[in-house]
Amino acid sequence: MIGSVEHNRMRIHSAEILSVGTELLLGETLDTNGYFLARQLAELGISTYRHIVVGDNAKRIEKAIADALECNDLVITTGGLGPTADDLTYDVAAKVAGFRLVSDPVINRRIDERFALRKKTRFVACTSISEDKQNVSVVGLAKSHVVYPLVPEGATLFMNENGTSPGALMTFDWPLPTGESRRKAILLLPGPPGEMEPMFLREVRPVLEKLSPERLINRYVHLTGIGEPDAEAAVRDLVDQQTNPTIAVYVRDGDVSFRITQRLAEDGDNEDRTGTLIDLIKERLGVYIYEIGTRSLTEVVCDKLLESGATCAFAESCTGGLAASLMARVPGASNVFKGGVVTYTNAMKADVLGVPDQLLREEGPVSEACARAMAEGLYRLTGADYAVSVTGFAGPAGGTIKYPVGTVFIACRSRLGTRVIERHYTGSRTNIQDRSAYASIDLLYRSIESS
Amino acid sequence: MIGSVEHNRMRIHSAEILSVGTELLLGETLDTNGYFLARQLAELGISTYRHIVVGDNAKRIEKAIADALECNDLVITTGGLGPTADDLTYDVAAKVAGFRLVSDPVINRRIDERFALRKKTRFVACTSISEDKQNVSVVGLAKSHVVYPLVPEGATLFMNENGTSPGALMTFDWPLPTGESRRKAILLLPGPPGEMEPMFLREVRPVLEKLSPERLINRYVHLTGIGEPDAEAAVRDLVDQQTNPTIAVYVRDGDVSFRITQRLAEDGDNEDRTGTLIDLIKERLGVYIYEIGTRSLTEVVCDKLLESGATCAFAESCTGGLAASLMARVPGASNVFKGGVVTYTNAMKADVLGVPDQLLREEGPVSEACARAMAEGLYRLTGADYAVSVTGFAGPAGGTIKYPVGTVFIACRSRLGTRVIERHYTGSRTNIQDRSAYASIDLLYRSIESS
Repeated sequence: MIGSVEHNRMRIHSAEILSVGTELLLGETLDTNGYFLARQLAELGISTYRHIVVGDNAKRIEKAIADALECNDLVITTGGLGPTADDLTYDVAAKVAGFRLVSDPVINRRIDERFALRKKTRFVACTSISEDKQNVSVVGLAKSHVVYPLVPEGATLFMNENGTSPGALMTFDWPLPTGESRRKAILLLPGPPGEMEPMFLREVRPVLEKLSPERLINRYVHLTGIGEPDAEAAVRDLVDQQTNPTIAVYVRDGDVSFRITQRLAEDGDNEDRTGTLIDLIKERLGVYIYEIGTRSLTEVVCDKLLESGATCAFAESCTGGLAASLMARVPGASNVFKGGVVTYTNAMKADVLGVPDQLLREEGPVSEACARAMAEGLYRLTGADYAVSVTGFAGPAGGTIKYPVGTVFIACRSRLGTRVIERHYTGSRTNIQDRSAYASIDLLYRSIESS
Repeated sequence: MIGSVEHNRMRIHSAEILSVGTELLLGETLDTNGYFLARQLAELGISTYRHIVVGDNAKRIEKAIADALECNDLVITTGGLGPTADDLTYDVAAKVAGFRLVSDPVINRRIDERFALRKKTRFVACTSISEDKQNVSVVGLAKSHVVYPLVPEGATLFMNENGTSPGALMTFDWPLPTGESRRKAILLLPGPPGEMEPMFLREVRPVLEKLSPERLINRYVHLTGIGEPDAEAAVRDLVDQQTNPTIAVYVRDGDVSFRITQRLAEDGDNEDRTGTLIDLIKERLGVYIYEIGTRSLTEVVCDKLLESGATCAFAESCTGGLAASLMARVPGASNVFKGGVVTYTNAMKADVLGVPDQLLREEGPVSEACARAMAEGLYRLTGADYAVSVTGFAGPAGGTIKYPVGTVFIACRSRLGTRVIERHYTGSRTNIQDRSAYASIDLLYRSIESS
């Protein structure tokens, strides 16, 4: 962070998020920044009533910023900070806030350092393929235009570790209709999530924490093996009745989570009441709760395996490696995750996992018996303590009268024996694959818990 | 579709997208509907200047709809159509447009049919694990509340094949400040993408096609093995100079695409000029183009393998099954995709793929030699015509001085020999894994092309 502007004169109660980019309006890029920032603001206790997307058009950006400032203490923009002609956000926001744009030597030096670090990709070996067109073309196209950004003079600047455009927080007096003025702020953030999110978490959030009048306790309860409608129904009365702490329900990637938020009074009774609410949730949904904290299900599985010195592996048919790849997302997974096999064909199931040909012919590759044989074959092959298998019909074609598209068998072999479950999913091929993969990790988790 | 309202009196030049849902403002749900609809509108030639997200608040929804109608012919809302108290969009939109809400017998019958079809999940076998807590709890929670929606009387209704709330298109006369009135429309769509997207593509889009004054030719050029900045730089002059046809650049999942759009005059020179522009793009970027059409890279790979009767398989270390799972996303992949192995540990690399222990010790598991040995071991193990391997350091820990985090080796063994490439990626573990997986499919594609 550069700059020591005194922000303490202001308090941020509400913010509007403004995503800038014609590519967003044309559906060329999915805007995940609004989602990320909305959650951050909720955690900070800053209210948000609207989120707007506009194109790279100076008049529309200016109107959106001015409209948002009328009703909010803070406007957060993402996008449009780059060096090209259609990147207008610095210019427009500086104009609205009354700031001058200048070149900043510290920022420029950082950019020089970043470019110096850039690595080059090279081909190390091309046996039998004489010509490497791709490599030649990459070299032909490679250019490095270093354009130093102009930034608002006197703003607090936030370093961009993953790009060239710094973020900026401008605070200023904004005239009210009454003739008085009020302290307002504009926060400018880069558009690419890979630049914006780390910058926000590392540098911006601590500043906003100081400016939010709310002091909050946020706690998270994560559930697996239950859908959102059932999870929500089980706590609906709590959601409706509670005002402090409150419960919010999040759904993502097969996971249902509750965020329990308690607002703390400035000088009052600040006893932590989140525990009481979490106890109520435990009473009702305890069997589905895998984490009270921030870890994902795969992280919890890895931690539990590590604690007991155990390992896992996956044998996948219809999910094609997806379940294994979810395990591999966890940093340090190599301590507990051996890997596995993707046996997409019957031959692979037979050759690599030793599933008997007769079983494949008589029961079929999508069957309880095949899931069991896959898990047991994987158990022998890898020596993993928990060997999980998935086989099913992901569609759109395939399936039998007995086992239509959406039928999935999942098995887990451990020292206690083999457990097999049958699931029926609807929806697209992708949906069936995703849900099957999550269910296989759920079964692994439950098998570890039962051990 | 139900209803035969005469929409032909109107022409839709511009639309605003309004996403409704407090869960969006709290960052509980990622809004992908705006992205999907923005792209659809772009393809239909309907301009979009703004996209707004508001919460489940009647006053804010009403203001947003009214504001949007001032400047646009159409407002598209998503979300807030459900039967619960906080689902307000039908009510508010019907009020703004002057429609009455009624129960529709056709819609109600469809909902009854859907509920009758619901399947139940059951456990088929639990060897050695006596108690099945999860199953008991699922049964305890399972409920089916059928609440029939009230829909705008006289609106065109769109069936929801994946949920209970139908979509609705209301057209009506909207008073202008001049005292005259103008035909405007509100389109109400359900919030869940799994309901909204199929409804839009099947039923809504054909209606909007008739109402858009534009007649467009949309063509797509897809590239692999090149980043967005380089791809965009190579066609920037074309993007800047062209007014009809135009070029838009899309990026998603490691893929760069151009959309070439030509507007057709109502009665004029309507020669297809997209081909000339595509030829220019081919001249500059031909080596990166894998598809002029709509197929993804994995679809093209599957089609090419099918044409030549060949098969592929993957041996993955740092990507943990991700590349294989991308292949398994393609419907019908089983004809050409045998599967593979996830050799996350050295032991798996040695035991399953036969990578020599000495090689692992001397060269290390992340090395050109190991990638080569993995691909060759997989080639022997599976008999696939193209055996692709990936090994690298995805981080955040790991890496060596010679090969820091982000170093990835990818190999492809085919009858022509083994090709190995080295890549260096930056960013998060997820980013390195994703890019490595895409690069492995790119290498597979290029190896097929060279054969």
